[in-house]
Amino acid sequence: MRYKRVALLTDFGLKDNFVGVVKGVILKYNPKIHIIDITNNISPQNIIEASLLLKNSYKHFPNKTIFLTIVDPGVGTERDIIVIKNKSNLFIAPDNGVLSFLQDEDTKLYRLTIPNRFIPRPESATFHGRDIFAPTAGLLSKGTRITKLCIPTNKIKKMKISVPVKHKNSITGKIIYIDSFGNCISNIDRRILDQLFNKKFSIKINKSVIKKISLNYQDINKIGALFNSFNLLEIAVPNGNASRKLKIKEGDLIKITF
Amino acid sequence: MRYKRVALLTDFGLKDNFVGVVKGVILKYNPKIHIIDITNNISPQNIIEASLLLKNSYKHFPNKTIFLTIVDPGVGTERDIIVIKNKSNLFIAPDNGVLSFLQDEDTKLYRLTIPNRFIPRPESATFHGRDIFAPTAGLLSKGTRITKLCIPTNKIKKMKISVPVKHKNSITGKIIYIDSFGNCISNIDRRILDQLFNKKFSIKINKSVIKKISLNYQDINKIGALFNSFNLLEIAVPNGNASRKLKIKEGDLIKITF
Amino acid sequence: MRYKRVALLTDFGLKDNFVGVVKGVILKYNPKIHIIDITNNISPQNIIEASLLLKNSYKHFPNKTIFLTIVDPGVGTERDIIVIKNKSNLFIAPDNGVLSFLQDEDTKLYRLTIPNRFIPRPESATFHGRDIFAPTAGLLSKGTRITKLCIPTNKIKKMKISVPVKHKNSITGKIIYIDSFGNCISNIDRRILDQLFNKKFSIKINKSVIKKISLNYQDINKIGALFNSFNLLEIAVPNGNASRKLKIKEGDLIKITF
Repeated sequence: MRYKRVALLTDFGLKDNFVGVVKGVILKYNPKIHIIDITNNISPQNIIEASLLLKNSYKHFPNKTIFLTIVDPGVGTERDIIVIKNKSNLFIAPDNGVLSFLQDEDTKLYRLTIPNRFIPRPESATFHGRDIFAPTAGLLSKGTRITKLCIPTNKIKKMKISVPVKHKNSITGKIIYIDSFGNCISNIDRRILDQLFNKKFSIKINKSVIKKISLNYQDINKIGALFNSFNLLEIAVPNGNASRKLKIKEGDLIKITF
Repeated sequence: MRYKRVALLTDFGLKDNFVGVVKGVILKYNPKIHIIDITNNISPQNIIEASLLLKNSYKHFPNKTIFLTIVDPGVGTERDIIVIKNKSNLFIAPDNGVLSFLQDEDTKLYRLTIPNRFIPRPESATFHGRDIFAPTAGLLSKGTRITKLCIPTNKIKKMKISVPVKHKNSITGKIIYIDSFGNCISNIDRRILDQLFNKKFSIKINKSVIKKISLNYQDINKIGALFNSFNLLEIAVPNGNASRKLKIKEGDLIKITF
Repeated sequence: MRYKRVALLTDFGLKDNFVGVVKGVILKYNPKIHIIDITNNISPQNIIEASLLLKNSYKHFPNKTIFLTIVDPGVGTERDIIVIKNKSNLFIAPDNGVLSFLQDEDTKLYRLTIPNRFIPRPESATFHGRDIFAPTAGLLSKGTRITKLCIPTNKIKKMKISVPVKHKNSITGKIIYIDSFGNCISNIDRRILDQLFNKKFSIKINKSVIKKISLNYQDINKIGALFNSFNLLEIAVPNGNASRKLKIKEGDLIKITF
C-alpha cells in the first residue's frame, strides 16, 4: 500500500537542522510524499508526553498517513524499532512504550530488521532519525511491503500509564501535561462526571479550590476547571497562564472531594 | 471555486499538537490541499498582533489562497465565525475584528451557520480550531459553496486601530509590535516623510533621541530609525536587539518633534 | 531545469510572519513548488552556524532541490547575492561566505544581477528575503535559466573556518555549536581517531576531563565525548544538557592530550 503523507512527532526541536534533515531523507526515498509536523517540540526524551500528544492527534488525520514518532532516549543501543499497522494507518517508533495507546485497536505488530538490507548502514550512533527512521518511513510510504523490512512480532513494550486513584469520597489524579497557554491538564477523564452528577464537590490543586466545572474559558471567573479537547480535566485561567499563576507543574496532585 | 492552499495564522504555538491536528482535519476534508504556516506564534489571544501580521502577509501570497486565522479569545462562546471573500482569496476568522484591515477592499461578507449540517457537532468547547475552523477551511478549499455553509452579512466587528496623534510641531505614535530580532515597530507610517521633508526633526523614544531616518540597518551607527518592510517606522540596533538594549516594550510612546 | 523543492535556511525565527511571507512570494512565482524548512532558527546574523548546518544538511536531500539560505547581516547594502550550481542542486545565498563549504565540489558560480529586469524593484531595504531572494528562488525553481538572472563569476567570499591547532602531544579545538539538547559540538573531526588509536589520551574542556570516546549516548556514564552525526567530536550528558551542566558555551576550548 502506498501512503499519502508522513506525520512527524519528535523531540528534535526547531533550532537545529535535525527535522529538516529527516524530511530530506524521507523525500530522497519518496520525492512525492507530503510531510506534516504534529510537533517537534516534545520535551527532550519525554515518552509520556509524546504518547499523550500522538494519542490525541492521530484520529484527526485522514487515512493512509504514516505516523513517525522519534522520541528515543535509547538511540544507538540495542532497542528495537517497531512498525504498527491499524486499519488505515501505519505507526513507526522506537520500542519504548510510546505507542502503548494502540493496544485496544485491531493492529498488526512488526519489528524492523536491523541491520536491514534495504537501509544503508547507519552513519552515526546518535541520529537514527536520519539514518534508520527516515529511510524506513520513506520506503514504507512508497509501497515497500512491511514484511520486506520487518518481521512480525506479538509483543511490544508497554508504558505504565498513570491513572487517578479512587477513594470513597474522593479521587486523586495528577497533572500530566502543561500546554503552551499554561493550561494544566490532568489524567482525570470525562467519565468522572457520572460520579459528580448532582453532588456538591470541590477540586483542590496546590492552594486553589474550584467548586464547579466550567463549559468553556469564558465561563470561568478567575480560576476554573473544564474538560479540554483531550476530554481530560484541565485547570485554566482565562486569558492567562494557569501554570505560572498557580505555580502548577507536571506531577502535581489534583484532588476531587465529593 | 477550488482553492490551492490554506495559509495558517494562529496563536497555538509549536509546543503542543494543536497546529498539527488542525492540519490533519483540513487534510481529512481535502487530502490534496497544501497548508502553509504564516506563523503560529502570535502572542496568546493578541488580536492586534494577528491583524498586523496578516495585513502585512496576504498580498504576498498567490491567488486562490484561504487565509485561516485562529486567534480566538472568545472560543466556546456565542461569538460568530466570519468568511470574507475578496477578488481572489478567502479569509476565515472569528468575528473579533482581526480582519478589519479588509474594510477598504471590495469584499463579500459571510457568517458561518452554527450549528452547521456539514460540520459535525464540536467535540470540545475549547478547540474550535479543530472542531469548526478546520472543517470549514477544508470544505471551502475543495469547492463547497460558501452559501452552503454561511449566510451573507453586511456587518462585522471592527477593531479600534491605534493611529498616531498629530500636534502642531510633533507627532506621537506608539510601539505596536516587537519582532524576533528586537526591532521595535511603531504605528507611524511612511507618509510622515512628507511632513519631515527638508526639516530638522528628532525622534524620541524612552531616553533615546534619533536625528535621522536611515535607509537600511548598515546605515545606522548605534541606534537608528528606518521604515521597515511593513512601511512603518521602526527603531533598530544593527546586529543587536533594540528592544532589550533600549528597554522598549509594546505600548511605549514614540514622539517626532520638528 | 525545473526544480522540485526549495529547502529554506534562515535566521528569521518563527515568531513573525517573515518565513510565511517568503514562502508566499516563492509560491507566487511557482505555485506548484514544495518548500521544506531546514531551520529558520539560526542565531541572528550567525553566518558560521548557518554554514555548519547547511553543510550537514544538503547531502541528505534529493536532487533538484534549491537551497535558499537567508542569513544576511548586509541586507540593504551593496553586498552581492550568489547562485551556485553543483551537479544536481542549486544554492542561493548572500555573498558572505556562508556557502564556502562548496569550494571542493565541481560547481558553477553566478552573481545575481541587481537591479534585475525579472524582479520588481525591492519594496524595502530590510527584507530582501521577500523582495529579492524569494523571487529569485521562485523563478529559478520553475525553470528560468540562471543566465537570464545572473552573470557568471569565478570568485565568491570565503569564510574563515576555524580548525583545531595541532601540537606535538595535543590538539586544541573549540566548541563551534551547541544544539538544542545542549550537546556541545567541537571543530575536531573523526580523523583525529587515527592519532588516538592505541594511545592513552584525555579530553579536557573547562573543568571536566574525559578519558574515552563513547560509541553512543548510553555508553556514557555521566559526561562523555563521542562523534556525532556531523562526524564532529561532541561533549554530551546522556538525558541531560551538557552545555548547562558543564557551563560550556560556543568558543570554549577543548584540548586532547595524548
